[in-house]
Amino acid sequence: MNVHDLPTPALVVDAAALDHNIDTMAAVRPGAALRPHVKAFKSTAMARHLADRGGHRTFCCATLKEMEGMAAAGLGEDLLLANETLDADRLATLVRRGDAHVTVAVDSPETVEVAAQAGADVLVDVDVGLPRCGCLPEEAGRIADLARARGLEVRGVMGYEGHVVANPDRSRRSGLVEECMALLRRAHDDVGGDITSAGGTGTYDLHHWAREVQAGSYLLMDTHYARLDLPFRQALQLMVTVTSTSPTKGWGVVDAGLKALGMDHGNPDLPGWNVFFCSDEHTTFLPAPDGDTGLPTVGSRLWLVPAHVDPTVAYHERLYVTDGDDVIETWDVDLRNW
Amino acid sequence: MNVHDLPTPALVVDAAALDHNIDTMAAVRPGAALRPHVKAFKSTAMARHLADRGGHRTFCCATLKEMEGMAAAGLGEDLLLANETLDADRLATLVRRGDAHVTVAVDSPETVEVAAQAGADVLVDVDVGLPRCGCLPEEAGRIADLARARGLEVRGVMGYEGHVVANPDRSRRSGLVEECMALLRRAHDDVGGDITSAGGTGTYDLHHWAREVQAGSYLLMDTHYARLDLPFRQALQLMVTVTSTSPTKGWGVVDAGLKALGMDHGNPDLPGWNVFFCSDEHTTFLPAPDGDTGLPTVGSRLWLVPAHVDPTVAYHERLYVTDGDDVIETWDVDLRNW
Repeated sequence: MNVHDLPTPALVVDAAALDHNIDTMAAVRPGAALRPHVKAFKSTAMARHLADRGGHRTFCCATLKEMEGMAAAGLGEDLLLANETLDADRLATLVRRGDAHVTVAVDSPETVEVAAQAGADVLVDVDVGLPRCGCLPEEAGRIADLARARGLEVRGVMGYEGHVVANPDRSRRSGLVEECMALLRRAHDDVGGDITSAGGTGTYDLHHWAREVQAGSYLLMDTHYARLDLPFRQALQLMVTVTSTSPTKGWGVVDAGLKALGMDHGNPDLPGWNVFFCSDEHTTFLPAPDGDTGLPTVGSRLWLVPAHVDPTVAYHERLYVTDGDDVIETWDVDLRNW
Repeated sequence: MNVHDLPTPALVVDAAALDHNIDTMAAVRPGAALRPHVKAFKSTAMARHLADRGGHRTFCCATLKEMEGMAAAGLGEDLLLANETLDADRLATLVRRGDAHVTVAVDSPETVEVAAQAGADVLVDVDVGLPRCGCLPEEAGRIADLARARGLEVRGVMGYEGHVVANPDRSRRSGLVEECMALLRRAHDDVGGDITSAGGTGTYDLHHWAREVQAGSYLLMDTHYARLDLPFRQALQLMVTVTSTSPTKGWGVVDAGLKALGMDHGNPDLPGWNVFFCSDEHTTFLPAPDGDTGLPTVGSRLWLVPAHVDPTVAYHERLYVTDGDDVIETWDVDLRNW
């Protein structure tokens, strides 16, 4: 099928850019040195492609739905829920099913109790500066002791420096990673275990101590990460149709907006034009100051570049993978919702 | 089922608040004086409830998916696609199916051509000041002539004053509605037809000329519309679980974020607390300055209030309708995607 025959809005993945990104990452962080983050694409079909081409067999997830789907798809060799859960029944069901090696992040007595009820292995989640989950570094040993006292396998520590990954200054970013990893190392000294897990797309090549990096955005990319000096290409675009133009006033409108794009990082880009604003099912655009002043014709196709990949993909049922204008695969976004 | 037994995040509708909103609107704009906007809730089950309780039989939609779903659900008595489409094949299939009276907004020769190919009735969409779709008022007669020359039924005009509906000053809002409707009236003079369609939740009782108002947000409401002096109650909340707390640093985290909430109007509210920031599957919160300083326990349930109802609902598979703590109905969000 030709990509231009798809109904719009259509979320389209450029296969060559995706494979460039997979190869570039795998050259620096091969195999288990990367634990790809499933939350960035929420598709078992895409995870399978990543395993086949990139050689990664360990994955991390942000939700139980992602864990369950990856296990059911035969991708459960080593699955980390890199997040806290209080749903002991659902976690226990996943562990009992037996089709995945399940490890879960814990940062409190309550989450240790949930892991114990479910019989999951654990990683102690450590706060390395992002104001979110994770125990204090000095509490990590106590959490590990608690887990071991409940008979759990403590595989190590994780600490996500989410406040650092988008810092535009590479050397500053590198220095901040060192500071964060000093905190995680302190926790690891008390916790033990083989796994030290950290990082993301913005810091994938700045980790010299952590054994594995949890990156996902590098695969499809977005305008937010594109601001950094990273070797990854923009692989994701939203194909849209021009539905209206106002030649007198100088704007045009395409048929996708707030319900097709994660908006927390701001408006998408529309190369060649300036995005004016988005509403539910529309994006209004203006000519760029240095661009062609003519508006596109009603019915023509344009391509938006999302500002934030994760919440954009979560709005869509499927990803269309293209080689030039040919749609070569369709990947269901089967891991969205909860 | 008790609402606290639901997995989180769960999008919950308070039945009493919803019915208050339906009744309050129907008292001012009964029957066909309101054309409820399906885009705000994307659920045929909820549309059925609205038809039964509110007595409205005419609906408007923003996407063909919404039109198709409403028609298939037996709610196609008078369906308006209040948006431009270039997908003639899909529109034609909908018209041919015969289970809906299909009217579509047109604002250009191209969209008239699509309507003609499909055999749909049309409404001329007029720009009344929102920089989005709609022809200039002085072009409306020409668009209508074009449609009639193609043998189409021209039912009238629509013009959405989206730049006005959230103005916090009611008398200013009212004056702006008058200005917008002067533009739509001018277009209607040239176009003719029975239908004059405009408005939204923020201006539902300020329209004295337009025959019908296109409101949807009033049903579930959000923090953005709550700033106005409207008689509608907050009926929608996102039930979440506290997954982590940092008593030393003073924050807590719940298990929903950017993938469960439309973020274009900013962070959700968490009554009793201050929302710090949202990430993909987390919201970090701090004690409110005047609130209780103790953090909730890990595992307890809290309730987020979304900032923008439409793109929030579009992230969810279903709405849980509650009477107190009892879940009395589950409504699929069956009209999301495209």
